[in-house]
Amino acid sequence: MRATEVIDHLHAVIMAGGRGTRFWPLSTAKRPKQLLPIVSERTMIQETAARIRPLVPPERIWVVTGAEQAEEVARQLAFLDRDRILVEPVGRNTAPAIGLAAVHLLARDPEAVMAVLPADHAIGDAEAFRAALAAAAHTAAEHRKIVTLGVTPSRPETGYGYIESGIAVARVGELTFHEVVAFREKPDLETARRYVAGGRHAWNAGIFVWRASVIREEIATHLPALARALADPALVRDGGGAAAALAAAYAGIEAVSIDYGVLERSRRIWMLPVDCGWNDVGSWTALYDVRPRDPAGNVIAGDAVLADTRNAVVHAGGPLVALVGVEDLIVISTPEAVLVCARDKAQDVRKVVLELERRGRTDLL
Amino acid sequence: MRATEVIDHLHAVIMAGGRGTRFWPLSTAKRPKQLLPIVSERTMIQETAARIRPLVPPERIWVVTGAEQAEEVARQLAFLDRDRILVEPVGRNTAPAIGLAAVHLLARDPEAVMAVLPADHAIGDAEAFRAALAAAAHTAAEHRKIVTLGVTPSRPETGYGYIESGIAVARVGELTFHEVVAFREKPDLETARRYVAGGRHAWNAGIFVWRASVIREEIATHLPALARALADPALVRDGGGAAAALAAAYAGIEAVSIDYGVLERSRRIWMLPVDCGWNDVGSWTALYDVRPRDPAGNVIAGDAVLADTRNAVVHAGGPLVALVGVEDLIVISTPEAVLVCARDKAQDVRKVVLELERRGRTDLL
Repeated sequence: MRATEVIDHLHAVIMAGGRGTRFWPLSTAKRPKQLLPIVSERTMIQETAARIRPLVPPERIWVVTGAEQAEEVARQLAFLDRDRILVEPVGRNTAPAIGLAAVHLLARDPEAVMAVLPADHAIGDAEAFRAALAAAAHTAAEHRKIVTLGVTPSRPETGYGYIESGIAVARVGELTFHEVVAFREKPDLETARRYVAGGRHAWNAGIFVWRASVIREEIATHLPALARALADPALVRDGGGAAAALAAAYAGIEAVSIDYGVLERSRRIWMLPVDCGWNDVGSWTALYDVRPRDPAGNVIAGDAVLADTRNAVVHAGGPLVALVGVEDLIVISTPEAVLVCARDKAQDVRKVVLELERRGRTDLL
Repeated sequence: MRATEVIDHLHAVIMAGGRGTRFWPLSTAKRPKQLLPIVSERTMIQETAARIRPLVPPERIWVVTGAEQAEEVARQLAFLDRDRILVEPVGRNTAPAIGLAAVHLLARDPEAVMAVLPADHAIGDAEAFRAALAAAAHTAAEHRKIVTLGVTPSRPETGYGYIESGIAVARVGELTFHEVVAFREKPDLETARRYVAGGRHAWNAGIFVWRASVIREEIATHLPALARALADPALVRDGGGAAAALAAAYAGIEAVSIDYGVLERSRRIWMLPVDCGWNDVGSWTALYDVRPRDPAGNVIAGDAVLADTRNAVVHAGGPLVALVGVEDLIVISTPEAVLVCARDKAQDVRKVVLELERRGRTDLL
């Protein structure tokens, strides 16, 4: 295919199955992070869809999500035809979700090229991101490769997995594709520093591009049981049978990530390093990096009064929030709950969620 | 009079005129500190009344307050006859309030002995406190003195005024009355340390005992204009005329404290040192001292979840409050507002109140 032809077959698959408790009290079972306006006035999934639309028209944008969230996804992405929202009967991690999307894409378009996009990440430079996706689509289609975007690390982060790259194998404009030497688990700080200094490691952002037919082949090779479960032609048949076929298929599927189940075992992976202001917005702390700050370093959304306060992240979605003489705090209000958290302890918000579960406070979860 | 006779004439006058913004967001114009359950499940004024009742029967308990709070005072102290609640048409500091109470007491009982009690203080040892009041009543009645209780200082506090005592002049049981040498303004830290080490200085707690006739004489001597304004017999006449007479009297009265207007000038003051766990509960920080703490040093009231949190004061009166990884914070929630304040900055809560006034947010004040 020529360049314009590849782009005409490019589908975006937005992965919106996450439950995520790290944005409690704003995030709840019915309104997980991707359906919340955390980074801007738009929700994360609205931002993700808007980011891809200059490259992919609505009829080739897909969402994979769960039954609990499907209605809200449809409401937030009103431009989508309802049959572009693939509803898993139960979450089984990313490999089944991606496999299911590939089945649907191939039923409509055997030449489909598929970009997998998490619904809940922030991208500072959307133009650079789209340029990378377009280049990845061409390269993945032409060479029949699995392409993973690798985010150039800006700090020795110990919370992410890394991808170690090898020799350069292809070039599109100024973008260079590399062989993948290995996937590396979350490193300790010293190792992370070595990774950053060495220049060959990139963060694994969960953003992938491939021909739908290629990922189907790879799933057949590395996850044959999943491939068999998704082989039922009824899954993509119009009418009443699809939901029952889907429920039957998922009943026996094991939960496995595409990283662990396929990518770490595949022999046809390339990586495209990108530097596009990516942030996985993994906790409230990330807002300090992705939202504008006032001169005192505070990130403020909603009804708030700050006195003698520095480097705070405030999201007042319930009662007014007043801060006096504090530093490095995260303060989130909803009508039901208020979170006050040290800025470097945001990952421990899950401790509150666990305690509320223990107390049976489902009204707050 | 003999001892039992003095006690039969002892009246308690609870001073409940304060506005106080230091307990925002719980305290508002309509619900100032004394009408809030800050130290226990009962409100401060309910605690104050309950503390005195073993010594003084309901018919001799009086409250001086403002029009905005009178209804709530009556509701909270339902055992009081309504005519025991003296309602000032406008606040003019403590001297007029005390003068007005003295006029009412003397109209009923020329032998009245009057204990003046702020409505919004905490007393750890109520029994010791009542014993001191009873001794002060006898001594004040017998010697026709102004007796001020002086709280034995437990720390070099720079936020209170001090009373310097001289020679011992009377003794009741183990309690010793002293001459007053001088009233001292709020000292600097070095001076406060010297006061505490010297053993002759006590905190001025605003708790006084005297014959009503004696304070009337002293007001006539030192504040003659106030004495004239309060001389109108219509003030204590039953029926419609009293309110109009009160409004007329207060129209020309200057605001002055009993300390500045009378006590600092009087030549008949004695002090009784007391050690009864007194705390003026001057700001949210005081809760750390007057309420029980959990093993991590946290003071918790209401619906709260704390993780890895130490020395926090939490008062959840609105949404649930969750704290993660923080120390030395005050967190107060109401349905309308949430305060998050450093424990050593509680006096700066007024900055929030001023900013809300500037923004016209009377809904929150």
